[in-house]
Amino acid sequence: MSRIRAGVYGGSGYAGLDLVEILSAHPAVDLVFATSNSYRGEPAPGAALRYIAPAEAPLESADVIFLALPHRASASWVKRGIEAGVKVVDLSADLRLDSPEAYAAHYHAPHPHPELLPAPYGLPEINRANLAGVDVVATPGCYPTTALLGLYPLLRHNALAADAPVFIDAKSGVTGAGRKPSLSTHFAEVYSNLVPYKTGRCHRHIGELEQEARKLTPRMGPIVFCPHLLPVDRGLMTSMYVTLHDSFNSSQAQDLFAECYANEPLVDVLRTGEQATLKHAVKTNRCVISITPALESYLHIASVTDNLRKGAASQAVQNMNLMVGLDETMGLI
Amino acid sequence: MSRIRAGVYGGSGYAGLDLVEILSAHPAVDLVFATSNSYRGEPAPGAALRYIAPAEAPLESADVIFLALPHRASASWVKRGIEAGVKVVDLSADLRLDSPEAYAAHYHAPHPHPELLPAPYGLPEINRANLAGVDVVATPGCYPTTALLGLYPLLRHNALAADAPVFIDAKSGVTGAGRKPSLSTHFAEVYSNLVPYKTGRCHRHIGELEQEARKLTPRMGPIVFCPHLLPVDRGLMTSMYVTLHDSFNSSQAQDLFAECYANEPLVDVLRTGEQATLKHAVKTNRCVISITPALESYLHIASVTDNLRKGAASQAVQNMNLMVGLDETMGLI
Amino acid sequence: MSRIRAGVYGGSGYAGLDLVEILSAHPAVDLVFATSNSYRGEPAPGAALRYIAPAEAPLESADVIFLALPHRASASWVKRGIEAGVKVVDLSADLRLDSPEAYAAHYHAPHPHPELLPAPYGLPEINRANLAGVDVVATPGCYPTTALLGLYPLLRHNALAADAPVFIDAKSGVTGAGRKPSLSTHFAEVYSNLVPYKTGRCHRHIGELEQEARKLTPRMGPIVFCPHLLPVDRGLMTSMYVTLHDSFNSSQAQDLFAECYANEPLVDVLRTGEQATLKHAVKTNRCVISITPALESYLHIASVTDNLRKGAASQAVQNMNLMVGLDETMGLI
Amino acid sequence: MSRIRAGVYGGSGYAGLDLVEILSAHPAVDLVFATSNSYRGEPAPGAALRYIAPAEAPLESADVIFLALPHRASASWVKRGIEAGVKVVDLSADLRLDSPEAYAAHYHAPHPHPELLPAPYGLPEINRANLAGVDVVATPGCYPTTALLGLYPLLRHNALAADAPVFIDAKSGVTGAGRKPSLSTHFAEVYSNLVPYKTGRCHRHIGELEQEARKLTPRMGPIVFCPHLLPVDRGLMTSMYVTLHDSFNSSQAQDLFAECYANEPLVDVLRTGEQATLKHAVKTNRCVISITPALESYLHIASVTDNLRKGAASQAVQNMNLMVGLDETMGLI
Repeated sequence: MSRIRAGVYGGSGYAGLDLVEILSAHPAVDLVFATSNSYRGEPAPGAALRYIAPAEAPLESADVIFLALPHRASASWVKRGIEAGVKVVDLSADLRLDSPEAYAAHYHAPHPHPELLPAPYGLPEINRANLAGVDVVATPGCYPTTALLGLYPLLRHNALAADAPVFIDAKSGVTGAGRKPSLSTHFAEVYSNLVPYKTGRCHRHIGELEQEARKLTPRMGPIVFCPHLLPVDRGLMTSMYVTLHDSFNSSQAQDLFAECYANEPLVDVLRTGEQATLKHAVKTNRCVISITPALESYLHIASVTDNLRKGAASQAVQNMNLMVGLDETMGLI
Repeated sequence: MSRIRAGVYGGSGYAGLDLVEILSAHPAVDLVFATSNSYRGEPAPGAALRYIAPAEAPLESADVIFLALPHRASASWVKRGIEAGVKVVDLSADLRLDSPEAYAAHYHAPHPHPELLPAPYGLPEINRANLAGVDVVATPGCYPTTALLGLYPLLRHNALAADAPVFIDAKSGVTGAGRKPSLSTHFAEVYSNLVPYKTGRCHRHIGELEQEARKLTPRMGPIVFCPHLLPVDRGLMTSMYVTLHDSFNSSQAQDLFAECYANEPLVDVLRTGEQATLKHAVKTNRCVISITPALESYLHIASVTDNLRKGAASQAVQNMNLMVGLDETMGLI
Repeated sequence: MSRIRAGVYGGSGYAGLDLVEILSAHPAVDLVFATSNSYRGEPAPGAALRYIAPAEAPLESADVIFLALPHRASASWVKRGIEAGVKVVDLSADLRLDSPEAYAAHYHAPHPHPELLPAPYGLPEINRANLAGVDVVATPGCYPTTALLGLYPLLRHNALAADAPVFIDAKSGVTGAGRKPSLSTHFAEVYSNLVPYKTGRCHRHIGELEQEARKLTPRMGPIVFCPHLLPVDRGLMTSMYVTLHDSFNSSQAQDLFAECYANEPLVDVLRTGEQATLKHAVKTNRCVISITPALESYLHIASVTDNLRKGAASQAVQNMNLMVGLDETMGLI
Repeated sequence: MSRIRAGVYGGSGYAGLDLVEILSAHPAVDLVFATSNSYRGEPAPGAALRYIAPAEAPLESADVIFLALPHRASASWVKRGIEAGVKVVDLSADLRLDSPEAYAAHYHAPHPHPELLPAPYGLPEINRANLAGVDVVATPGCYPTTALLGLYPLLRHNALAADAPVFIDAKSGVTGAGRKPSLSTHFAEVYSNLVPYKTGRCHRHIGELEQEARKLTPRMGPIVFCPHLLPVDRGLMTSMYVTLHDSFNSSQAQDLFAECYANEPLVDVLRTGEQATLKHAVKTNRCVISITPALESYLHIASVTDNLRKGAASQAVQNMNLMVGLDETMGLI
C-alpha cells in the first residue's frame, strides 16, 4: 500500500505539536508540511521539517490535512481542502455541531460555511460506522470526548433515569486553554490554584456533548457541566455523577462498561475499586475509566484522557486511519 | 482580662504547625508548650519555644489545650485534659460523631472513650450557640467544614429537593493527608496527577457530614462524596451539585447565601459570576463560596477553604475564642 | 507621632500587590491610593481601597510614594514626586546605577532623567548610613539584593582572592518576570521545566551588582551570573561559588557571617550544616544565608529571599521606614 | 540474529520502571522477568508480565540482567550473574569506583565484593572502546553522567586551567531520590521549594566524577559539587562554571563541543545563544548541552539529561546494546 502524505495546519499550538510528533512517528505516513505563522522557518519539534506559512503550504501535495486552527478560521480551510480533493480532519469546533443554528447558539457568531454541516462526528468508539472512508471528519472537543466515552455504555443501554440531571465536574490541564499567552494561563496565576470557569451550562462544549448524548438516549436529562483549570500541563478528568434508571442497579455498571469496551484498544476500564487518575492517561492515546457505585441508584464515573491526545491529536489520527483505510490504531499503540 | 495559656499536642504535623503559628501571633494567648515526638528538642517554627515530648508537657499549667493528634490517640488526652480542669479543643475525629456506634461504623474500631460522646460540634457559623463557654469542643474535619458551610443556607431553609442526592466532588491539597511519609504522598506520585480516593460513600468524613446536615434538614437525600488528591500543598474545594425543592428557584440562591453570611467575618460569598478558586482561601482563615444556577432546579456551589486553617487550625482557634470568652475572630482577621 | 500617608504607583503588578498588602498592615501607615491602569475601579486585594488611574492619583496628598513601575517610565514619576515635595521609594531600575553611562550600557537606552543620578542605594544592611531621612531611594533588584547580602561579609573583610571570578548560579520564581503575559511565563512552558536565561554577563542586574560589590572590594574579580527560571511562583536563591584570599580559610567563614549579621533582624545566617532553602524565605521579609566550606579556599554560599519581599516590596518599606524616621523593621517583623 | 532475553532486578523503583518500559519496546529484546518485592504479583506497567520476587527469577534463562538495586545489595547479584554466565548491567554504585578503598571512602562501608573491581565504566560516549562485548558494566550515576558529558570536550583537549576549581551547581527532579517514602520526598515538603543537599564535596557521586575526569585530565583542579532537589518529578541539570587554560579562549568552546559530539546520536549541542532546559531532555534518552562564554577565560556549561533515562535506564540499555553486539542506540532513538 502506498504511504499517506499528511499536512498539518496550525502545527505550533499544543495540539499541533502533538499531531506533528505522532504523524512523524506513524509507520504509514509522510508528514509533508506543518504550518505556523509564529514559528515559520523554525524546526518543528520531533519532525524532520521546518514550519512554513499556511499560504505557502502545498495543499494539493497532501492526501490528508489536519486543521489545528482556531474555530471560524478553520472552516475556510476545510473548504479549500475539499475543493482540492484532499481529505480533511478538522480539530476545531467548526464541524462538530450539526446545524448552523446550534453553532450560532454556542459560539455566538454565524457559522462561516454552513454548507459544510453536518459532518461525521469523529469519536470512533461511538460513531465508527460513519467514519470509514469519508472525506471530512469533525474531531470532537477534549471534554465531550472524555465525557461521552464515560457515559456511552449507559447511554447505549438506556440505563439513565429519564430526565434526571447528569452532573459533570471536569478538570483540565492548562494546555487545554491553548498556547496564546493570557493572564489566565500565566504561571503565577495558575500555580497552586484550582479555578472553575464557565460553569453550569455556559461552556461551549456543552452543545456537542448534549447533541451526541441525545442521539443515544433522546430522553436524557440536562447536563450540568463545570470545568476547572488544574495546575498541571496536560491531562483531563471528567467526574460524572449520574442517577440510574429503576431497572438498572449500580452494581451492574462494572460489567456493562467492561463488556462495552472489551474490544476497544484505546479505552481501558479499570477493575472495581481502582480509580482512574490523570497519570493513567497522560502521554498515552487512551481513555481510562473507573466506575464507583453509590447506593443502588447512583454512579461516580471518572473518565480520563490526555487532552492533547485522545482529546485532540491522537483521536484526529485515529480518524485519519479510518478515513484512508489504515488499521484504526496504527501509530497509536 | 488575663491572658490565655495554651498548649498544643501534636505540634509538628501540618495542622499543628499552623496552630503553633496562629497561637504564637494571637494577641491574647501565651503558647506555653507544643509537643512532638519526632522533633522534640527542636525549635517550633514561628514560635519562641522548643518541642517537648507529650509526657513532659505541663498539662496543668495550661488554660486550654489543642489536640492535633491521630484519632484514637486523641481521646485519652481529652480525658486527661478534662480531669485536669483544662479546656480541650480536639482536632481529631474522636469527638465528632454523636454516638459510639456511628464512630465504630466509620472508623472501624470501638470508640476508646464512649463516655465522651456527644460533644459540641465546633462549626461556629452553624453551631455557635452551643460553643460559648463550654469545656470541650470537637473541631470538624476539613471536608465537612467546607461542605457544610457551602450547603448551610439551603439546609436551613429546606431548599433542597427531598430525597434528591447531593453530589460532592471534593479536591484537597496534599497536607490534608498528613505529614507521615507514604507512597501516596511521595512527590513523584502526586506531581502532575489528580487522584480520586475513597469515592462514593466510603470516606470516613461522610459520617459527620450527614449527621450535621440532617440536623438541619432531616429529610435530606443521600450524599455521594468523591474526594481527590490535588497536586498542591494546601487548599480544599468542595464542588457541590444539588437539586432544589420545587418551591425554590435557582435564581434565588445568590441572595439566600448573601443574606445568610452577611455578618459572618470568616465566610465570603462571591458575587454572581465570580467563581471561588483555591487562591481565594489558601493561607487565609476564611471559607469562600460561589453559587452558579443551572436551569431552574440545580445549583453548582464551590466552597473553598485552606484545609489547614478554616479546615483545621484556625477553626480550632475560633472555637477556643468562644470557649474562653474572647472575641470569636481574635487572632484570625 | 503622626501617621505616614503612602501611595503606590503600579499597585497591580506582583511587587505592587505585595506592597499594597504590606502597607495596608503597617501600623504607622495609611495607604491613601494605589494605581493600576489594567484594574482601575477594582478593589485592591488586601486593602480598603480601589485602584485608580495614575493621572487621578492625589500625589500631593501623600508623604511618600512607591514606584513599582517599569524602568524608563518610573524616572518621570520620581521627578514629579520630588517636585511635589513627596518622598520617593523607587522600585524600578532607574535610580540604581550611579551614572547615565552605566544605565545606557545595561539598559540599552539613554537614561530618561540623568540629573537624578546618583541616588542612595537602598540596601539597608549594607548602606544604612546613607538612607536615614533622605528623600529618594533606589530599591535594589531582587538578584543584587540576594547576592550582595550573601557576599557582604566577605567583601567587607577583603576575604576574596583578588581577581578570582565569582560564579553566581541564581534561580528565581516566575513572579520575578512580571505579570504581563508572555510565552515564557505561560504555565505550560514553565511547568516541569528549568530555564537558564541571559547567562554569562548579559543580565542587566549585573551592572548594579558589580557597582555595589566594587565599592566594598575594589579589586574584586569578575562576576559570572547565570539566572534560571524556576517552576515556582515566588522565591529566589543565589548560589555563589567563591575563591578565598590566601589569608582567609574557608573554616572561618561561618563565624564571619554570623558576626556580621548578628544584629540584623532581617538576615538569618543558618548554622553550619544547615542549607538555606526557598521555603526559609518565601512569604517572609528576610534573607536567609547558609555557608558551606569546600577545601580550604572555596565557599558555596546559598542566599535566599522572597523576590517580591526582601527582593522588592518589603525592602522598599524598610527603606521608607528609614526615610521617614520610623523603626527600620516596623511592619516587617 | 537471535533475540536477547533480558531480566530486570528492582523493576518497581523509578529507574526500574523506565527500564521495564524501554526494554519492553526494544525491537531485539524479550523481557523475561522483572522483580519487585513490594509489587510481586502485580502487572509491571508497560510490560506484558507481572513482577516476581527476586528469589523466584529464572536468572539462568536470561542473556543479560539489569540490576536496579540499592548499592551493597547489588554486588552479590553481580556475582550470581557472573557465575551463571549471564551478562550484567549494574545500575547501582557498587562497580563504579575502581578500588575498594575509594568505595569505602565514599560509601562509608567496606565493599561487599572487592574482587569485582574495577569494572568498565559504562559511559559510552567517553569509554565506548572498553564496553563492546564485555560481560559486566557499571552504569554511571545520573550526576556524573550529566557532568562528565558536559566537561568531556574540555577534558579531552586539556582546555581547563590546571588546578582551577570546577564548580558544579546541579539540580535534580525528585525521582532521583528514589521511590521509598521519606519526609524529604513528601509532596508538601518539596512543593514550591528548592533544597541544596550534600553540598561542597560530600555527595558520594563526587568520587566517580573525579575518578573519571582525572583519567582524561590528570591535573584537573578540585570539583565543588552542590546538588539541589528541584520541585519536578524528573530531569537533571548540571550547571558548570569552569576556568579555561591560557591557551584556550572561551570563544573556541562552541566549535570544540560541536565537533566532539558531531557523531553522537544521544548528545545534542545547542547552537550559540540557545540554553539547555530541562524540557530538552525529559522523557528523551539524550543529553543536551549549551555553552556560554563569559569573558575570555570562563564558561558556563548547562548539561541536561532525564535522570531516569540517560542518567540511568536508557544508558543501561545503551550499555547492553554494546555488550551483546547490537547497534548501540537500538531501542533508544
